[in-house]
Amino acid sequence: MELDEELQNKWGFQRNRELSTTSVSIRSVLTKLVDNINKDDQRPLITLARTDPSVFPCFRTSSFAADSIADAVKSFQFNGYAPSAGVPSAKRAIAEHLSRDLSYQLSADHVYLTAGCTQAIEITISALAHPGANILLPRPGYPQYEAQSAFDQLEVRHFDLLPEKAWEVDLASVEALADENTVAMVIINPGNPCGNVFTRQHLKKIAESARKLGIFVVSDEVYGRQAFGDNPFVPMGEFGTIVPVITLGSLSKQWVVPGWRLGWIVTCDPKGVLQASGFVECIETFLDITTDPPTFLQGALPQIIEKTKDEFFSNILNILSEAANICYERVKEIPCLTCPHKPEGSMTVMVKLNLSLLEGINDDMDFCLKLAKEESITVLPGFVVGLKNWLRVTFAIDPSYLDDGLRRIKAFYLRHAKKC
Amino acid sequence: MELDEELQNKWGFQRNRELSTTSVSIRSVLTKLVDNINKDDQRPLITLARTDPSVFPCFRTSSFAADSIADAVKSFQFNGYAPSAGVPSAKRAIAEHLSRDLSYQLSADHVYLTAGCTQAIEITISALAHPGANILLPRPGYPQYEAQSAFDQLEVRHFDLLPEKAWEVDLASVEALADENTVAMVIINPGNPCGNVFTRQHLKKIAESARKLGIFVVSDEVYGRQAFGDNPFVPMGEFGTIVPVITLGSLSKQWVVPGWRLGWIVTCDPKGVLQASGFVECIETFLDITTDPPTFLQGALPQIIEKTKDEFFSNILNILSEAANICYERVKEIPCLTCPHKPEGSMTVMVKLNLSLLEGINDDMDFCLKLAKEESITVLPGFVVGLKNWLRVTFAIDPSYLDDGLRRIKAFYLRHAKKC
Repeated sequence: MELDEELQNKWGFQRNRELSTTSVSIRSVLTKLVDNINKDDQRPLITLARTDPSVFPCFRTSSFAADSIADAVKSFQFNGYAPSAGVPSAKRAIAEHLSRDLSYQLSADHVYLTAGCTQAIEITISALAHPGANILLPRPGYPQYEAQSAFDQLEVRHFDLLPEKAWEVDLASVEALADENTVAMVIINPGNPCGNVFTRQHLKKIAESARKLGIFVVSDEVYGRQAFGDNPFVPMGEFGTIVPVITLGSLSKQWVVPGWRLGWIVTCDPKGVLQASGFVECIETFLDITTDPPTFLQGALPQIIEKTKDEFFSNILNILSEAANICYERVKEIPCLTCPHKPEGSMTVMVKLNLSLLEGINDDMDFCLKLAKEESITVLPGFVVGLKNWLRVTFAIDPSYLDDGLRRIKAFYLRHAKKC
Repeated sequence: MELDEELQNKWGFQRNRELSTTSVSIRSVLTKLVDNINKDDQRPLITLARTDPSVFPCFRTSSFAADSIADAVKSFQFNGYAPSAGVPSAKRAIAEHLSRDLSYQLSADHVYLTAGCTQAIEITISALAHPGANILLPRPGYPQYEAQSAFDQLEVRHFDLLPEKAWEVDLASVEALADENTVAMVIINPGNPCGNVFTRQHLKKIAESARKLGIFVVSDEVYGRQAFGDNPFVPMGEFGTIVPVITLGSLSKQWVVPGWRLGWIVTCDPKGVLQASGFVECIETFLDITTDPPTFLQGALPQIIEKTKDEFFSNILNILSEAANICYERVKEIPCLTCPHKPEGSMTVMVKLNLSLLEGINDDMDFCLKLAKEESITVLPGFVVGLKNWLRVTFAIDPSYLDDGLRRIKAFYLRHAKKC
């Protein structure tokens, strides 16, 4: 009653249209799935919908990394504001870290530290957006790019990744989509959500196509170095002399600390086109008005990178490889699912749903909602990442839970299978 | 040569107009001032242009606060993603912390954690912006609001703060500026840049004016509780039944850790207008697509708040009070400067520049550039905060440096004083 009266006072606020038309976020779908879990189910909830292995002891980050942060914050040297682009020693550490995979040397000047890869995406998309411009995004992809583009009123055009060709970019569709208003194309390598790793040859072809079209390449390498199949990880920056490359990354996946929120934007562009075209100035202007990663986290970064042992990374890769294998083999035993390409990198894979084999399941969201309710397991419906009636499965969980989870999906299938 | 050839390739990128027309940032002006410092000057650089006392031992944060972060990160319990609105225990801790100053109790549901107050401003302004809308900002003020509004294409209208009335809001100008498209007004209390503290009576009048105009009040209380004069700090939320109040804050100033980047948006609105009008939904949608403060920092927050002793805060207030006094007294000795109101809160004060007493100084920027070069001291030119030919002086530095800094300004004046 009091509220009714209150709302009769005419308030000037209206809902922001860009915000409310923003594409669906992974987080909002996750909330719906978790709300659908049966609270009386005594079994542990198994989360294959969200890529956050940090909760499992086998994926625990290096204690050297945690100690580095504790040391930095207790030193009282990193409580003040950081420079907009980041603490110089942290920028140098990232430049050296990434240069290990490149045939040329990056410098600290090429590195901009951000509050996680999320903010790296936010800043990059905002800098690319101008009225009338469009950007080419992969389908399937990572919906943060769509959401940020909608917010910045940057038109999105989707090119396909081809499941039958190990999820390579359909370069013919890229060339057909681009026009004089196209500013950039985004690739994600190792692939989220497909779990593929692009070959050196394919990356070179992408660079050549982008150069021909006059568009920058944004290379999301948040899963950088997380390749455990036949194709080694090659950074897109290797082809920075062919096309200007804006590399995005973070500590989140390699160090298994998605909650730490330390990311970067790196210009891999030996010819200096990004500087000369004004892109770098846009990034720097934006960094002057936006938030930063905590200074002590930046201060800890050189130690985190230096002290984390190679065994930590190889151990994580071994677990991911084992988990990818379990995922691929178990999916084969579930008739309504097909995995077109065995995962060889990142932490997720796309699996096709055959609804014609199921009774009373309308689509991927319906499948995931009912699965959550009946089996206490969350899987991301493919529509969220651009492929309706597919599923995105995160295999980066403790392998025994993964095995249990896929058995539950099989049981769900058996209960819902269409009777012949 | 290679670059020239490269730029002949037609790249689709253009500068983003909103970014390049964004109002001037404090950071960009600071960079110009620091670039003008004479590197051969052997004296320590004294920074009165930037509010970051954390570098001085006397302003060192509580070791309990630093230990809380070290403990949280070493617990390995806070490495994963946090919920969009924040870790529940951290939200509860902020609700309790702020409720201590209120006559009603906030709950965790009213609290949204952000990556510093900068991100709190970013999210709030973005949620308020819709095509055709305008917002009322104080002059002088904090230019982050202008920059973010420009970025979101939200029209800005300035109301005056009145130096002769202890920098109170000119409510007549507020009423004259507002129209049916006005969504909100922003106040900053304790005041940045003026160093004033609004009385309870004045806050109530602001609430009544805003209610009459149908506009929300955004109350920037980043300097909350930092009042050391006659007026006690009263949160605007006290008047949340008169007008919906969106309170912004952070750990930065109270704990003297501007680099930690943990802030909040809190809805102080017992009648639920912000919920019913859709404002809360806008905030939540935005939080789903943007970055968060690090999870371990959120995890440490209950301990940080609980363990920091009252003596820490009273000690900081004592130093600020002493520094404000030095500042006010020393400025009196510099004929070209006038301080209309002795600072009684926050960490900055506005001082008027009388150019007619100076020879060869064109304006406030010119004054600050020459002062930086000749005396190795930075002061923020007033135009950055909305008052041309004023200066914003940060007094939150070690008092002995402050004293030295103001003596250098006096020496600068004496060298540049107009000969009669």
